[in-house]
Amino acid sequence: MATFQPGDPAYDLRVRASFERQSMMKTLGASLERVAPGEVDIRLGFRADLTQQHGFLHAGVLTSIADSACGYAALTLMPKDAAVLTAEFKVNLMAPGAGEAFVARARVLKAGRTLTTCSADVFAVNGGDETHVFTMLGTLMTVQKRAGLSD
Amino acid sequence: MATFQPGDPAYDLRVRASFERQSMMKTLGASLERVAPGEVDIRLGFRADLTQQHGFLHAGVLTSIADSACGYAALTLMPKDAAVLTAEFKVNLMAPGAGEAFVARARVLKAGRTLTTCSADVFAVNGGDETHVFTMLGTLMTVQKRAGLSD
Amino acid sequence: MATFQPGDPAYDLRVRASFERQSMMKTLGASLERVAPGEVDIRLGFRADLTQQHGFLHAGVLTSIADSACGYAALTLMPKDAAVLTAEFKVNLMAPGAGEAFVARARVLKAGRTLTTCSADVFAVNGGDETHVFTMLGTLMTVQKRAGLSD
Amino acid sequence: MATFQPGDPAYDLRVRASFERQSMMKTLGASLERVAPGEVDIRLGFRADLTQQHGFLHAGVLTSIADSACGYAALTLMPKDAAVLTAEFKVNLMAPGAGEAFVARARVLKAGRTLTTCSADVFAVNGGDETHVFTMLGTLMTVQKRAGLSD
Repeated sequence: MATFQPGDPAYDLRVRASFERQSMMKTLGASLERVAPGEVDIRLGFRADLTQQHGFLHAGVLTSIADSACGYAALTLMPKDAAVLTAEFKVNLMAPGAGEAFVARARVLKAGRTLTTCSADVFAVNGGDETHVFTMLGTLMTVQKRAGLSD
Repeated sequence: MATFQPGDPAYDLRVRASFERQSMMKTLGASLERVAPGEVDIRLGFRADLTQQHGFLHAGVLTSIADSACGYAALTLMPKDAAVLTAEFKVNLMAPGAGEAFVARARVLKAGRTLTTCSADVFAVNGGDETHVFTMLGTLMTVQKRAGLSD
Repeated sequence: MATFQPGDPAYDLRVRASFERQSMMKTLGASLERVAPGEVDIRLGFRADLTQQHGFLHAGVLTSIADSACGYAALTLMPKDAAVLTAEFKVNLMAPGAGEAFVARARVLKAGRTLTTCSADVFAVNGGDETHVFTMLGTLMTVQKRAGLSD
Repeated sequence: MATFQPGDPAYDLRVRASFERQSMMKTLGASLERVAPGEVDIRLGFRADLTQQHGFLHAGVLTSIADSACGYAALTLMPKDAAVLTAEFKVNLMAPGAGEAFVARARVLKAGRTLTTCSADVFAVNGGDETHVFTMLGTLMTVQKRAGLSD
């Protein structure tokens, strides 16, 4: 696996400050668990008001935490003046979103000048057990010098 | 474009009843706008508590309404005793999620016995204008005779 | 659907010249059928030496013509000094690759400064009938001032 | 990472026999390098007649070996009477397809009764070095009792 150098020495503070501005993460009750160069984990407790019709967590909720984890994993490697945008992603739902909590673990596969490829896995946590329920593969974009966008 | 026959004459009522059970749609404030064989539209008003760090709607929110629209578009063509599950999807974010409201329009591309291919486009609504901001291509699964799953 | 202005008045010649340099298209026996701003069609005859184990066209072959069609549809809208690279794509195989010939029809959904979103549909041709067997959704990148890359 | 039990004790012979029937693999000059439960590697030498316009291996060629590797990785876990079909996949091209040879390494992430989720990474080989140039995430389908399909 690749080893990465942070793009900005203050990457940790910067990611945490940007995460605080993601009101969607607050709405979901998600928390930023871990920030390392090229890697970010986000945790979410199960909530009945975030489910689909069968009582499982909605795919859009798992996608939300995986996408934010990928975005911030990419941001740790970007230069100080850059902002991150999601260009696209693909997800596979391998098991129902059933569990007490969910952890999205994102890691950068390739950090290019403009595009970063990132994957994230979401695990359902039940007691001490983790089940791999969801995987994402996506592309993040480094945006520089675009009015109004900063991270 | 394909023309589809509903899998259950009561498809409209069935989709509306299942949508009511998706607590995530209530949490987001989304509404089911239109149900037709192989086609479903879902609408969502902009809300500041659903945004990412730049103030745009979070990709996971657009994904949520597009995924539900695809799932229900697929369900309209499934037999009476079937439930629908999302297997996977891919999305492209073509413009920021900025607008007064967002409409996800899903349409089935191919309804197979087990797998249904569906696409959804999300448009940002600003006054009378619509901007195409998001597109999804995904696969839904027809689940029959699985304990506890119904739609 | 969007209407596009070509990025270079000589887009047609340029796409045709670049296509001639794609040795893979020759190896497959594919031909460039149609070039318009934001739209390109590529045709391929069935060949038994391009199949998978069940005798259908290999997914990689359908992907090859769809990817080239998307790349060139994107290139029609790029500036004169730009080259096109595929960043990523997703495909759904909706029916087996069985037919006398196959036509990939690509159209740009959104042409950004750096990234272009494009979709392509592949139809199997049997006599006068066409069956929609494959769909692609992908992202192309505009590359400028990179040594050695031109189109 | 998951550990898998083969679905058929003769999985190795079965995969090798099916690979021999993939005429596309012969056309590309690809070889089956390794078969294990849930894992398959396919190797391909660089050839100038498989390239795109910049002289790199065409994305469709990398896709072909990655898709076959995923399909056969999935098949190792399927019951004796099953055939495998690709439902969909997504790929990211992280670096140009430049190298002396390319190895696609597929591993199953989740083997369900009907759907198998699989990922594949392609590495470009230059002397003793390997560069990660391509990644695939896809869904394979177990097909049983369908006339004419066997593996």
